[in-house]
Amino acid sequence: MSESAAPTREEKVLGIIETARGKRPRFKDDQVTMSHGAGGKATQSLIEGLLGPAFGMESFADAEAVPGTDLAVTTDSFVVKPLRFPGGSIGELAVNGTVNDLAVAGARPLALTLSLVLEEGLPADTLREEVEAIAAAAEEAGVRIVAGDTKVVERGHCDGMYVCTTGVGRVDPRARLAPDALRPGDHVLVSGPVGDHGTAIMLARGDLGLEAEIESDTRSLWPVTDALLEAAGSGLRCLRDATRGGVASVLNELARASGVAVLVDEAAVPVRPAVAGAAELLGIDPMYVANEGKLVAIVAPEESERALAALRAVPGCEEAVRIAEVRTEPEGMVLVETAFGGKRVMDLLAGDPLPRIC
Amino acid sequence: MSESAAPTREEKVLGIIETARGKRPRFKDDQVTMSHGAGGKATQSLIEGLLGPAFGMESFADAEAVPGTDLAVTTDSFVVKPLRFPGGSIGELAVNGTVNDLAVAGARPLALTLSLVLEEGLPADTLREEVEAIAAAAEEAGVRIVAGDTKVVERGHCDGMYVCTTGVGRVDPRARLAPDALRPGDHVLVSGPVGDHGTAIMLARGDLGLEAEIESDTRSLWPVTDALLEAAGSGLRCLRDATRGGVASVLNELARASGVAVLVDEAAVPVRPAVAGAAELLGIDPMYVANEGKLVAIVAPEESERALAALRAVPGCEEAVRIAEVRTEPEGMVLVETAFGGKRVMDLLAGDPLPRIC
Repeated sequence: MSESAAPTREEKVLGIIETARGKRPRFKDDQVTMSHGAGGKATQSLIEGLLGPAFGMESFADAEAVPGTDLAVTTDSFVVKPLRFPGGSIGELAVNGTVNDLAVAGARPLALTLSLVLEEGLPADTLREEVEAIAAAAEEAGVRIVAGDTKVVERGHCDGMYVCTTGVGRVDPRARLAPDALRPGDHVLVSGPVGDHGTAIMLARGDLGLEAEIESDTRSLWPVTDALLEAAGSGLRCLRDATRGGVASVLNELARASGVAVLVDEAAVPVRPAVAGAAELLGIDPMYVANEGKLVAIVAPEESERALAALRAVPGCEEAVRIAEVRTEPEGMVLVETAFGGKRVMDLLAGDPLPRIC
Repeated sequence: MSESAAPTREEKVLGIIETARGKRPRFKDDQVTMSHGAGGKATQSLIEGLLGPAFGMESFADAEAVPGTDLAVTTDSFVVKPLRFPGGSIGELAVNGTVNDLAVAGARPLALTLSLVLEEGLPADTLREEVEAIAAAAEEAGVRIVAGDTKVVERGHCDGMYVCTTGVGRVDPRARLAPDALRPGDHVLVSGPVGDHGTAIMLARGDLGLEAEIESDTRSLWPVTDALLEAAGSGLRCLRDATRGGVASVLNELARASGVAVLVDEAAVPVRPAVAGAAELLGIDPMYVANEGKLVAIVAPEESERALAALRAVPGCEEAVRIAEVRTEPEGMVLVETAFGGKRVMDLLAGDPLPRIC
């Protein structure tokens, strides 16, 4: 054959460079694996290589504007095991997770829809507890449940229940947020210690064989967003809640979208001792562990102090801190400066070390 | 004990009458059963006895207005088995089902969100097929997918995939639809033969041990709604898509909401011979079998002819017909007049003869 479909060596090398520089990855797997749900590289290939292109979307996972309105919508399914854990439960998580996707898109949460997939044999009391948890979390977050659905599947499916929540919010006129808005010199803030939620779930399952007093950080992030929008105005470049894949995944996503580098000061990252211990046992950096009530804020350097002060004034965010800075190079990458002055790459997760944490 | 909690005979009798007259049922089960997902009595007790009151909602299942906007939202999870069946697939069903909830609420569908729960090991080609089916159905229905989510659960859960779609639509200014708007004398129209979807699913599973050429009727009902709104104007009292629980459940719901009776002319109900045959084998009336592309329209008698003509002019609705009339009594009930002139009650379904058909 005179025309070969096989890539030349030059094309291969270019492909590797393009991937590192943040070009769209392809979905090449034969089947779905747990990794596709982990928020790392495989999830990215599924979303950017299959779902995004099929639906003509840049991103498949974030809150998006509804055409012709000032509203944003977002949707999430929750499949966390176990259903209840220290600091929260699936129902509370479902409300807060969806509210938070709206909040970090700069949209004030207005309303939620709620779809329940229930397992045959689920105790009515468990269902009641979750319904009450959902109602309480919705009230706390100031949103109304406006539509719903229930389905039932046979015993042995869905581990009690899956919960799908969709949120509708109104885009705040103060918000000028975009994932490609990061500029060299910008500061990266986190609203508190990282890795609490994922660690609480792993401990609740007993998988680690250790006990520690770690609670999920599930909560509504709208009050935090509101405070940041007020304090930093247009100096607020972008917000993200650091769920699946943790803060590391958020920083990678934003570095790629903005064509910048992010340099993390490892010593500055707040981590509770029990979270650090569990992460060490798992062989995973707490920066990759899920949070359900922490956000990452990227702010212009001149607004950084004001934003940090505003963050710390919000109850529950007293430990907010600056952890990283935006640089010019290497484009699309996240680097960590260790306590000893060395640097290493903080890439997207491969595999799924923490399945079904949300 | 001088004060007894046990109901007196009089209270019991009053309770029975109240239930028949459409008072709110209670959720009294110890655990979730397949019946709670069937769209009949148990679903009603779950929704009206637990979920509605917990979230301060009249109804938990329909498209609802978003406070402070002219938008309506609705949400649905789809757990149909098998994933593909004659005439459609889970992806197509998810788009059309959600679009139709908006349509029958009088809202022009604008946008959908899509949340996928995928099973570890799902073949990538199956996922691709459904993604394509979703994209094609969305384009056909004129809606954009605006946000999404993916989760993965371990092998043995979720039968390949569950799909949760949430729809946002703009309420059409011509629409004056309400479930309590039925008046004695109103006519009840259906847009075509009933029971195709549920029958196609049962046949595709091989549960009935018979073969027949029945295809799901899954399709967008917005064009039908649009035609009815134009033709019947404010004479259009209410619309419903007759999904889980079929036309019988829709009529029961509306009779209760409006405090009227509905008298069905059994001989007038259009049913394909293969659907009638399968229903006979199952021992179920086709009026209880799910449709995914048929609507029930209640119209004022003076607009009935015009509405029927408009319906029949929509491609695919040529067999639309009047099947029932609204009466004064017995309040909250549906009666059927048989071909032999007898009458019987057409109550809500008890149990779940057709599990997981959507």
